[in-house]
Amino acid sequence: MRSKTKVKCLNTGDFIKIEYEMRVGDDKKLVATSKEELAKENNIYDEKQKYGDIVVIVGQEGLFKEINESFKNAQVGQELEVEIPPEDAFGQRLPSNIKVHTMREFQRLNIDPRVGMEVEINRKIGRIISVTPGRVLVDYNHKWAGKKVYYKYKINGTITDTAEKVKAIIANNYDPEGFNVSVDDSIRIEIPENAKFSVAWLDAKYTIVNTARKYIPGLDILITEKYEKGKGEEQNKTETTAEQPAAEQRETPAEAKGSGQEETNAKN
Amino acid sequence: MRSKTKVKCLNTGDFIKIEYEMRVGDDKKLVATSKEELAKENNIYDEKQKYGDIVVIVGQEGLFKEINESFKNAQVGQELEVEIPPEDAFGQRLPSNIKVHTMREFQRLNIDPRVGMEVEINRKIGRIISVTPGRVLVDYNHKWAGKKVYYKYKINGTITDTAEKVKAIIANNYDPEGFNVSVDDSIRIEIPENAKFSVAWLDAKYTIVNTARKYIPGLDILITEKYEKGKGEEQNKTETTAEQPAAEQRETPAEAKGSGQEETNAKN
Repeated sequence: MRSKTKVKCLNTGDFIKIEYEMRVGDDKKLVATSKEELAKENNIYDEKQKYGDIVVIVGQEGLFKEINESFKNAQVGQELEVEIPPEDAFGQRLPSNIKVHTMREFQRLNIDPRVGMEVEINRKIGRIISVTPGRVLVDYNHKWAGKKVYYKYKINGTITDTAEKVKAIIANNYDPEGFNVSVDDSIRIEIPENAKFSVAWLDAKYTIVNTARKYIPGLDILITEKYEKGKGEEQNKTETTAEQPAAEQRETPAEAKGSGQEETNAKN
Repeated sequence: MRSKTKVKCLNTGDFIKIEYEMRVGDDKKLVATSKEELAKENNIYDEKQKYGDIVVIVGQEGLFKEINESFKNAQVGQELEVEIPPEDAFGQRLPSNIKVHTMREFQRLNIDPRVGMEVEINRKIGRIISVTPGRVLVDYNHKWAGKKVYYKYKINGTITDTAEKVKAIIANNYDPEGFNVSVDDSIRIEIPENAKFSVAWLDAKYTIVNTARKYIPGLDILITEKYEKGKGEEQNKTETTAEQPAAEQRETPAEAKGSGQEETNAKN
């Protein structure tokens, strides 16, 4: 046996770069991977996905617990395989997740139901498993419920630079294009044009700030958006929920004086 | 006649503090004012409104054009009255804005229609003007349509300090509580906790940035939000649209890698 004193082990909170393959079910069907070529060979290539190593944080919530466990004995350069039982992966298949709908409901939704079709009803996604003249059975179990998950990964490196860690956290939650990150006594993040008026950014920001606080503690975080002088009004607004109502053209000073958030809302 | 050479006239873009009374119709009913006592005397006091002088910008869009016109000859300390004809105020009353609804529509909306009731149907606000067994007439004309508006105001001062101007623009569009504004080579705005995850702030910000760019030109605007180190996760989120779905607990690294805004959206 070789001495283990020279082996560098991973610790909770380490940022690691991994390549991975995720397979599901008895036939170990490939359902996700970081490897572009492998995705193409298996007909699961998605041009919207960015391929290449991903960054995960050891111990991070949201990872399968078996994967987090496996990190304890993992080393950089090593390839590992992890098996995740259905109950820890996408849950067991539950008969109670199969619901009966009337044909009329489908008519109202303007859907012509066919077996195998994926549908979204009341914000839940399910698959149609049977269609009879009056009734439609929809299976709302996760499509991988009841299946084992096989996860193979290789750690290609670690990230120690603070700014790189922040960039990785951003990239895991939002399109990182255009973000400027620098670190001095604080973490400074300048956000790009497309995030300035984005509701999706509000949600991503929440996760990004909390993840950074947890895994890069001891630094204030300053998020800045810059509006350069002399730029046109129209260049600004890339995404927003409300349009300027025509009525505002007639707004009086009395009405223009918002007395808080609620009233501002009411106007729009 | 006194010489007018000493009189300081207003220019487009001047920030002025005014007190005002807005009256509507032949009976000159008071409908809005900056004066708390007067509002109480006329039974239009609204505890959510902040009373006291408001700040308007001479020439600003959104003011009645007759008021903007009147500024040309107005001076600080002077009281002026402006009459705005219906067509420039809330429009003429149009018969085509009166719509017939069936009683069944009201049943579906769970409204028991009565004459004089204000209702919101298809996002339009109207008043019920007649109810017969089968039909309900709703008048969607603005309640002040067809009426003259009388506007009395007095200019109590002007604002010349840049930071004060920015604060006034913020206060006209959002609750200004907690905002820090400073000016050096840029306009620097630090936003408070309640704005950090607020959709209402996105809209207000759009107007604030554009108004500041237009009337305080020549300076970059930097909007910053600060997250202090060591603060808890929960303290952050004061308002947001999406909650963390339970499914994220099972999120794989593969799924955790968002490849852009759209996918981030889809996850939430």
